Amino acid sequence: MSIRIGIIGYGNLGKGVEIALRQAKDMELAAVFTRRDPGSVKILTEGVPVVSTADLEAWKDKIDVAVICGGSATDLPVQTPQYAALFNVIDSFDTHARIPEHFANVDAAAAAAGHVALISCGWDPGLFSLARAYTNAILPNGKDYTFWGKGVSQGHSDAIRRIPGVKNAKQYTIPVDAALEAVRSGETPELTTRQKHTRECFVVLEDGADAAAVEKQIVEMPNYFADYDTTVHFIGEEEFKRDHSGMAHGGFVFRSGRTGVSDEHQHIVEFSLKLDSNPEFTTSVLVAYARAVYRMQQEGQKGCKTVFDVAPAYLLDMSAEDMRAHLL
Amino acid sequence: MSIRIGIIGYGNLGKGVEIALRQAKDMELAAVFTRRDPGSVKILTEGVPVVSTADLEAWKDKIDVAVICGGSATDLPVQTPQYAALFNVIDSFDTHARIPEHFANVDAAAAAAGHVALISCGWDPGLFSLARAYTNAILPNGKDYTFWGKGVSQGHSDAIRRIPGVKNAKQYTIPVDAALEAVRSGETPELTTRQKHTRECFVVLEDGADAAAVEKQIVEMPNYFADYDTTVHFIGEEEFKRDHSGMAHGGFVFRSGRTGVSDEHQHIVEFSLKLDSNPEFTTSVLVAYARAVYRMQQEGQKGCKTVFDVAPAYLLDMSAEDMRAHLL
Repeated sequence: MSIRIGIIGYGNLGKGVEIALRQAKDMELAAVFTRRDPGSVKILTEGVPVVSTADLEAWKDKIDVAVICGGSATDLPVQTPQYAALFNVIDSFDTHARIPEHFANVDAAAAAAGHVALISCGWDPGLFSLARAYTNAILPNGKDYTFWGKGVSQGHSDAIRRIPGVKNAKQYTIPVDAALEAVRSGETPELTTRQKHTRECFVVLEDGADAAAVEKQIVEMPNYFADYDTTVHFIGEEEFKRDHSGMAHGGFVFRSGRTGVSDEHQHIVEFSLKLDSNPEFTTSVLVAYARAVYRMQQEGQKGCKTVFDVAPAYLLDMSAEDMRAHLL
Repeated sequence: MSIRIGIIGYGNLGKGVEIALRQAKDMELAAVFTRRDPGSVKILTEGVPVVSTADLEAWKDKIDVAVICGGSATDLPVQTPQYAALFNVIDSFDTHARIPEHFANVDAAAAAAGHVALISCGWDPGLFSLARAYTNAILPNGKDYTFWGKGVSQGHSDAIRRIPGVKNAKQYTIPVDAALEAVRSGETPELTTRQKHTRECFVVLEDGADAAAVEKQIVEMPNYFADYDTTVHFIGEEEFKRDHSGMAHGGFVFRSGRTGVSDEHQHIVEFSLKLDSNPEFTTSVLVAYARAVYRMQQEGQKGCKTVFDVAPAYLLDMSAEDMRAHLL
């Protein structure tokens, strides 16, 4: 029997889950839930119902795992605990500082209902967290480096769009090559914020807006841009749509550690991602972990988990024998 | 209470385990076991007994996990099942083709004794296997690439040393840059053996040996060299000792996969290692997994496991709260 997946929220992530499920032979999309009028939401998969989130409770026994595709700022802190009472759930909550609080709320709800919940899944948090965990365990005497990009930062793009006179904007976070190379070559530099990433902005102005004033507001914006070398390009609407609609992203995690009688040996572990579509890769991770959530609950586990709690074997639609023969 | 570790076999790996344990605050070295005369084996750690393997049984209740540091060809197939009857055990068995058979033997012994055994741990098999497993789960529609090196292949060095007229030899396996770059850039080439790696040999000849004849025997050797572009350098004993005594190694695992409504998006995951000391890194992995073996047995698990069966949280000497706060 297939694992029945529900998608809650049908934006970029929801659609990504739908697409990723096509590659999962052991799973099926049971329903898509939306806060909008279900009649207005057109999904890719024939024959799958689009249902109002008002009717979620009726699906309690028809969904094995619900993938919650809301935003981290306001949606997930409310939705994940709420829906963990009804379903096994998984989310991609990525506000690092609030993970302990989110974990506690989701754990209480999931444990009370006998469900398994997995939070903060994707690539960072997610695969990058795994890279940090494995390499910290193996090389306790060492240093971590995480670089993001080249890719679009939604938060920084939004911050630019809030400036008066700005019609549209995209902000790319770019790792500094010299910093990457220093870490990769075995130096263990102390890197400032400015030395790790640069920020490149593509901005469409409203008619009559003052470019110099907008640029000044961007590059001096505290927290977002003031600590970085920032480049601002003003471009036309057409170029913006043509060249800056993509959702590519990526990044690098390094662990540089030492072993030996007198720490004489250095080891460098590098894990990197180059992604054409940030949401589709994120949801590919979510779907693999949804499989794990289902299996863990079938085994009698309950409560909130993270990627640290999941043995890799749970992620694969493959027998243990085949894994040992073909992947080990 | 510390996790009490026994080292069985005191060569490069055994010494590596001893060194890695110095970085593990929650573990202690209880004893080193050797087939040699214990009086002839000098270890680095003060106050730890060196014991004959003939007396292993007496240590049944004084060791929490035994790290078996024998060779894969003849030692481990016998030792790991045998010692799994006495202890929780871990090994670095790396003969890929024989893993299913080794697993079955170790599983039977460990399960009968109520012990946990973990086989084929290190970096390949080990971390590289994990990279393949995670990325196959996340990108089912894709292709794996594994490259090794630059580093010494023990098997190939041994093969050269068996040629008459050869006094000493080291063989380096080197990944071909063009192949690495092709995979990294998003091509998904079909690569022949020759296109993936080159082999570089440093050979010290016996007095009066025929260099041209030795070179011909090396480059034409079936299985080992015939399918590769092989370079042979004849050098003196002194240069050999000075420049070719290191144990550096490394390698790369890639997964190049596609997602999208019509597979229009490509994602490239790269995991790489650059290691000054192959044995010390391997044993750093073994020590982290020894911690997991102990914890899994404490939880009531038994039988043979691989890295696929171990949740990352078991590897770290860190609370779940700290992991979520600092590594997620």
